[in-house]
Amino acid sequence: MNNMYFTEEHNLFRKSLQDFLKKEVLPHIDKWEKTGTIDRFIWKKFGDMGFFGINYPEAYGGLNLDLFYTVILQEELQKINSGGFAAAIWAHVYLAMTHLNAEGDEAIKQNYLAPSIAGDKIGCLCISEPSGGSDVAGMRTTAVKIDDHYVINGAKTFITNGVYSDYLVVAAKTSPEQGNKGMSIFVVDRDTPGITATKLDKLGWRASDTAEIAFDNVKVPVTNLLGQENEGFAYIMQHFALERLVMGVNAHARAEYALDYALQYMSERKTFGKSLDMYQALRHKYVDLYSDMEVCKQFNYSVVFRLNKGEYVVKEATMSKLKSTKMADEVIYECLQFLGGYGYMEDYPLARLLRDSRLGPIGGGTSEILREILSKIIIDKKSYKPAT
Amino acid sequence: MNNMYFTEEHNLFRKSLQDFLKKEVLPHIDKWEKTGTIDRFIWKKFGDMGFFGINYPEAYGGLNLDLFYTVILQEELQKINSGGFAAAIWAHVYLAMTHLNAEGDEAIKQNYLAPSIAGDKIGCLCISEPSGGSDVAGMRTTAVKIDDHYVINGAKTFITNGVYSDYLVVAAKTSPEQGNKGMSIFVVDRDTPGITATKLDKLGWRASDTAEIAFDNVKVPVTNLLGQENEGFAYIMQHFALERLVMGVNAHARAEYALDYALQYMSERKTFGKSLDMYQALRHKYVDLYSDMEVCKQFNYSVVFRLNKGEYVVKEATMSKLKSTKMADEVIYECLQFLGGYGYMEDYPLARLLRDSRLGPIGGGTSEILREILSKIIIDKKSYKPAT
Amino acid sequence: MNNMYFTEEHNLFRKSLQDFLKKEVLPHIDKWEKTGTIDRFIWKKFGDMGFFGINYPEAYGGLNLDLFYTVILQEELQKINSGGFAAAIWAHVYLAMTHLNAEGDEAIKQNYLAPSIAGDKIGCLCISEPSGGSDVAGMRTTAVKIDDHYVINGAKTFITNGVYSDYLVVAAKTSPEQGNKGMSIFVVDRDTPGITATKLDKLGWRASDTAEIAFDNVKVPVTNLLGQENEGFAYIMQHFALERLVMGVNAHARAEYALDYALQYMSERKTFGKSLDMYQALRHKYVDLYSDMEVCKQFNYSVVFRLNKGEYVVKEATMSKLKSTKMADEVIYECLQFLGGYGYMEDYPLARLLRDSRLGPIGGGTSEILREILSKIIIDKKSYKPAT
Amino acid sequence: MNNMYFTEEHNLFRKSLQDFLKKEVLPHIDKWEKTGTIDRFIWKKFGDMGFFGINYPEAYGGLNLDLFYTVILQEELQKINSGGFAAAIWAHVYLAMTHLNAEGDEAIKQNYLAPSIAGDKIGCLCISEPSGGSDVAGMRTTAVKIDDHYVINGAKTFITNGVYSDYLVVAAKTSPEQGNKGMSIFVVDRDTPGITATKLDKLGWRASDTAEIAFDNVKVPVTNLLGQENEGFAYIMQHFALERLVMGVNAHARAEYALDYALQYMSERKTFGKSLDMYQALRHKYVDLYSDMEVCKQFNYSVVFRLNKGEYVVKEATMSKLKSTKMADEVIYECLQFLGGYGYMEDYPLARLLRDSRLGPIGGGTSEILREILSKIIIDKKSYKPAT
Ligand SMILES: Cc1cc2nc3c(=O)[nH]c(=O)nc-3n(C[C@H](O)[C@H](O)[C@H](O)COP(=O)(O)OP(=O)(O)OC[C@H]3O[C@@H](n4cnc5c(N)ncnc54)[C@H](O)[C@@H]3O)c2cc1C
Ligand SMILES: Cc1cc2nc3c(=O)[nH]c(=O)nc-3n(C[C@H](O)[C@H](O)[C@H](O)COP(=O)(O)OP(=O)(O)OC[C@H]3O[C@@H](n4cnc5c(N)ncnc54)[C@H](O)[C@@H]3O)c2cc1C
Ligand SMILES: Cc1cc2nc3c(=O)[nH]c(=O)nc-3n(C[C@H](O)[C@H](O)[C@H](O)COP(=O)(O)OP(=O)(O)OC[C@H]3O[C@@H](n4cnc5c(N)ncnc54)[C@H](O)[C@@H]3O)c2cc1C
Ligand SMILES: Cc1cc2nc3c(=O)[nH]c(=O)nc-3n(C[C@H](O)[C@H](O)[C@H](O)COP(=O)(O)OP(=O)(O)OC[C@H]3O[C@@H](n4cnc5c(N)ncnc54)[C@H](O)[C@@H]3O)c2cc1C
Repeated sequence: MNNMYFTEEHNLFRKSLQDFLKKEVLPHIDKWEKTGTIDRFIWKKFGDMGFFGINYPEAYGGLNLDLFYTVILQEELQKINSGGFAAAIWAHVYLAMTHLNAEGDEAIKQNYLAPSIAGDKIGCLCISEPSGGSDVAGMRTTAVKIDDHYVINGAKTFITNGVYSDYLVVAAKTSPEQGNKGMSIFVVDRDTPGITATKLDKLGWRASDTAEIAFDNVKVPVTNLLGQENEGFAYIMQHFALERLVMGVNAHARAEYALDYALQYMSERKTFGKSLDMYQALRHKYVDLYSDMEVCKQFNYSVVFRLNKGEYVVKEATMSKLKSTKMADEVIYECLQFLGGYGYMEDYPLARLLRDSRLGPIGGGTSEILREILSKIIIDKKSYKPAT
Repeated sequence: MNNMYFTEEHNLFRKSLQDFLKKEVLPHIDKWEKTGTIDRFIWKKFGDMGFFGINYPEAYGGLNLDLFYTVILQEELQKINSGGFAAAIWAHVYLAMTHLNAEGDEAIKQNYLAPSIAGDKIGCLCISEPSGGSDVAGMRTTAVKIDDHYVINGAKTFITNGVYSDYLVVAAKTSPEQGNKGMSIFVVDRDTPGITATKLDKLGWRASDTAEIAFDNVKVPVTNLLGQENEGFAYIMQHFALERLVMGVNAHARAEYALDYALQYMSERKTFGKSLDMYQALRHKYVDLYSDMEVCKQFNYSVVFRLNKGEYVVKEATMSKLKSTKMADEVIYECLQFLGGYGYMEDYPLARLLRDSRLGPIGGGTSEILREILSKIIIDKKSYKPAT
Repeated sequence: MNNMYFTEEHNLFRKSLQDFLKKEVLPHIDKWEKTGTIDRFIWKKFGDMGFFGINYPEAYGGLNLDLFYTVILQEELQKINSGGFAAAIWAHVYLAMTHLNAEGDEAIKQNYLAPSIAGDKIGCLCISEPSGGSDVAGMRTTAVKIDDHYVINGAKTFITNGVYSDYLVVAAKTSPEQGNKGMSIFVVDRDTPGITATKLDKLGWRASDTAEIAFDNVKVPVTNLLGQENEGFAYIMQHFALERLVMGVNAHARAEYALDYALQYMSERKTFGKSLDMYQALRHKYVDLYSDMEVCKQFNYSVVFRLNKGEYVVKEATMSKLKSTKMADEVIYECLQFLGGYGYMEDYPLARLLRDSRLGPIGGGTSEILREILSKIIIDKKSYKPAT
Repeated sequence: MNNMYFTEEHNLFRKSLQDFLKKEVLPHIDKWEKTGTIDRFIWKKFGDMGFFGINYPEAYGGLNLDLFYTVILQEELQKINSGGFAAAIWAHVYLAMTHLNAEGDEAIKQNYLAPSIAGDKIGCLCISEPSGGSDVAGMRTTAVKIDDHYVINGAKTFITNGVYSDYLVVAAKTSPEQGNKGMSIFVVDRDTPGITATKLDKLGWRASDTAEIAFDNVKVPVTNLLGQENEGFAYIMQHFALERLVMGVNAHARAEYALDYALQYMSERKTFGKSLDMYQALRHKYVDLYSDMEVCKQFNYSVVFRLNKGEYVVKEATMSKLKSTKMADEVIYECLQFLGGYGYMEDYPLARLLRDSRLGPIGGGTSEILREILSKIIIDKKSYKPAT
């Protein structure tokens, strides 16, 4: 373990988390991957263990721990090899709950954040739309205020936890004519009339339910507005740094998992009378990949360290996701190759890993959009300062 | 169409094949991909159309056409986007039937080759074993001659058409102590007692049935020996050039399909008010990939041209598979990216393409084994001359 | 030798060319590389041997041979390892002379083309300017017609043979207000008053003189206009296909040279008691690079074949240069590595090769500009048809 | 500046170093690059400024500062764009002096280390031999003890500062029959009879004198043995971690310099009416490269941090050099491309940078040897623990 960032407490937490995942989660993964549905009981267990509250306030049942606990949670979730399960957890804790915590008022925190931490309510975050995911400001869903309600109309797509979650954090245009200055965020109960969700069939993340969601005159009480009206775009942008950093961390963790698995395999599999790990061409390839992973990992840790201290790391978090997700895809591609035909079999972990990992450069801001952001920061010297 | 190699007749053949595939095959693909079973009727239709006999002798119902017809068949099969269906056809025509035609005697040709051309019998080729696929000479399956039978014992794995085929072309050691000089090839009826096949769950090629097959005291009449006893290794090696070249051709064809699809998509999808094909970063990436595909394609055609003239092209065919399969994986990876979230959905073609394409650098000789072969030819100046 | 394109006559030509280069050129290369000046006598010898007239009409002393003779000349020039010497020849024969032959009238052909073929006059082609090389249409040099002269003013830069050539083929704006529709081409004698050339210090191509050239009221007789006034841009574009294809051919040839040299070295150099060509990691890397070269080479040959038949190959020639020059840089980078410290020494061929090769993706249209062209052809479906 | 590792004092040091380099060194660089000779006065100035003593004991005139001062020195030396000058300094301070400090006794420290810190004596380290640089244990130079002298015979090559240094730290076999257990290290005065040095002509690092050195019965007093007899190999291995880390740091620094220069250029150069930094394809490429550099830089800093705390970082330092030198070569290759034709001119900084940077994956342990070491550590789980 890397003693530059991790204390004894961190390591103990990791150990107990590993035990928990092995005992409570691993035995169910294959089933959830097959059905595309995560059994409800596990959410409650996560809540009971406190995992959802790691970096949320104690007032709502959280543990208020430093960011390296989050890193540990994310890393270990990758290492049970279900990108979909990890995504479901992540969408709940870092997509939906982040908004509740940052912009929700006391009532919302009591009604949504506390039960989210407890594992009683599950959330999702609805930003992307069929007509466009990259161009957040171009979204078409509207929320029209009528008396003490907003009426939401539109469609969202690719929403993680979009079918089975209990509430939806939804971005919609309250002042469409004002572009990205006219967007607001709402928390919406699943059973509100007018919401229909359709499950999507995906290359990977198969344990997670991804939905296309239609909003047909969905009435939401004004009290369910998060933060200020028309401030939604700024809120979304503010939270991207953490979201992307987490996706970078996930990427190095699954690459490490692939490398560890492959090395074990290579030490056992023999061809032409020698174990695979004795072939120089494979050895050199392996350590090259391992080094790529290690370099990303250390970079990611350094960004976590700075974010944890409160530094402004939009640039670094963007780099983290951009580079780590590509690295992970490449590492996993080659690790699958090390297994030969077995790499292609779904009974061996690399096939699923390849499918799951491919989401990295797409979800949460595509690599091209990240390059656009970096171009603005590095080339045009624009500051992506958080709204204050 | 490339008029350096393709005549008017070739082009007409391609056109009618496209029509056939669109009408007879495409409507069933999604079902076959889901069930992992190709309906039997289509084999007969392929037989009726003469597609299985394209480069087999007229004496057995074949058409004896030049290799560019084979290229066309392969290319068009890739473009209906079911690597599994294409693989099933390919394993039948280029893995199993090649041996029947090259080493089978008249009786075998009448009993197996002719019905294979007609689409009445389907074959598979069993070389790889659980204990090793790269090290062909290290296979453990044995065939012991007892009176007028050989008794086969052992296990094969990753066998395409291994569950549903009617006969199996099987490599086994007849003189195990002689290493690769002690291997023979047999054609074995599916219903011979002692054969059991287990279907494998794969990343891609899902329409094709891939099996692990156990041979438990399987009695095969001596007349089912293909060619000479103990010459099996040489036979296998001789046919690799064509097999690998075909896999190279497949690779450029699926890359071209991915590029065509992506371009269409990019011309229709808009972000930030512009269609994707207007973004310079995407345009440059696209034409780079397109050029990679085109360079491989022309290389592959030139090798086909030479093989068709009877030249010795083991080196070139090996390069063809090595480079084209990697190119295809990279092209498809990026084309999926062009689709953003939709690339990740199984309802769009790129997800399946990514899964199917990944087999390229593994099946039919891994890239590492191809590099070993090229090293021997180019560096050690070994001639891989066909046994005569 | 590749018998798909090369006849016995081609092979004999190659052999005698090799002998000639070895005897007449090689002994002087190191000197020319050091001084940046090619001795004049060699131009005459090339002329005497007919090398400058290979694909020019017999009427002016040419041999009117097919394009594969040109390929042979280019390939062998690369293999004496002086990118600068090869560039000087190439700029004369394919940049300057192409314009004389295609657009020059009888007088110009007698006065410039014939002596160019004979090796008595050397030419250069002046298109690029200090203010921009990619944006040909944006050039600023003007040619104002006054009575029976044009008066040229402006500056050119990066001009190969720009210091020592006898005449200059110069592009200038005759109707600046008409953009690329207002450009004309002139042939200008070196000793015309007002021309000054400054030699540039370059990373590679050191045997070739590259100049920045100032034109200060240079008076050129109207008879020295090549072709029609204001048609210059179309002329330049027309000749790009051949120029770029030649640069693609050069690239595969120098990569092949690097590979051949490296293999020889690796078979002789021992580390840890084994010759380098026995290390699997190096073997696999080597054959990968070799295959990359071979694939490009065969692609390039196929484009030459089609151009030779009169086909329209702007797209393919552009791909040829784009892909082959990058391949060459990568191959040479790695071959240098195979030599260890000796790769870094100028007494060994790889250092110069690395320096020379780096020009490939820049000169004669940068890789980015080639991607722009390919984008227009492939994505926008623009036809780059030659003006007729 | 990165406030995770650098204090205010560090930053002040960097600032004053920059000023010094700009005023005292930069004006001479072009001359030194041309002549391959660094004027002697600058060594003394460096000594006077204390730069040679940054991490050496105060007892011998050093400053005993933490490793981040070394990082700053190295980074800034890269940014004056003379790999050769930086190498000369580096070979003196981190190759030669490291041995004096670690293994020299008091007399040697007084006679060699102190004047080295003062800039009065310059050193070099002689390990590599014409017959092999990678296989250190296979060296052939011998030192035979006769009375109170050792007599050294053999040849060394590629020795930085090998022509102009005042003393040579030389590895030789004292017990050749014991392989790497029979090697010792000596400090040898330049004017000892029997030493001849020949200057080598190199692709880059041209300001630095690299020599092939012959030792013909060179008599060295026994007091000039460094440390214990036959312990030389262990000493060499111990110092590799720092040497390689420094080479990794150099690599990220020159990549950063290239990126900074290129961005400035791109903001000023216009084509087709737009500045280069407005083209999306270039922007995306640029930020990709920038991110690669940044990720390596942060990784390198984290390794420095750990080494500075006394941790054992052989694995990490090896990764640092392996990955950073490759990254630097790629970044510089592309930055040169951004400059178009000007990138190819020696009057612009990228040409020299490309030449200088290419040494990275060769000197101080080739990338292949680094992969061998990493394979042993990561795959074979060998500990490369320092001898104690
Ligand atoms: C499994 C999965 C889970 C997801 N979960 C969620 C979720 O929980 N909540 C949510 O709101 N969203 C979610 N998303 C959506 C995700 O954020 C979007 O898919 C992503 O932002 C891309 O949007 P898009 O798919 O509309 O692609 P598009 O925006 O259509 O982009 C298509 C392609 O064009 C490129 N491109 C776009 N604009 C430019 C440009 N200006 N320059 C260059 N290239 C450009 C893109 O990079 C991409 O390659 C999820 C997606 C997936 C696949
Ligand atoms: C979907 C599918 C369909 C198939 N269809 C058929 C079929 O119809 N008939 C049939 O007979 N086989 C078939 N195969 C098997 C295929 O040919 C083998 O998977 C392949 O040859 C690799 O063998 P292996 O899986 O045993 O890998 P291994 O031989 O175990 O190799 C594992 C890894 O080690 C590498 N390696 C091995 N030896 C060396 C070495 N000396 N140096 C460096 N690296 C080395 C390999 O490249 C690979 O990366 C199929 C496989 C798949 C996945
Ligand atoms: C050794 C040498 C010999 C040469 N010989 C000749 C000769 O004989 N005759 C002659 O006329 N010329 C010659 N050239 C010039 C050569 O053709 C030009 O250098 C080349 O066309 C690039 O022009 P530039 O250098 O002005 O680069 P610029 O046009 O300034 O381009 C700079 C960078 O920007 C990129 N870029 C430009 N526009 C775009 C865009 N729209 N989108 C994305 N990227 C873009 C370029 O690709 C390049 O990377 C020679 C050059 C060299 C170095
Ligand atoms: C400019 C310059 C400055 C230098 N300065 C110094 C100095 O000051 N002092 C000093 O002692 N040395 C110095 N060196 C030498 C440098 O350390 C060696 O060049 C380097 O270690 C490689 O040794 P070599 O050149 O003999 O290559 P070789 O050992 O001959 O290696 C040749 C190629 O084979 C590869 N190779 C070797 N063994 C294997 C293997 N087992 N498996 C796979 N691949 C392998 C190598 O990676 C390399 O690519 C310098 C070199 C240069 C070029």
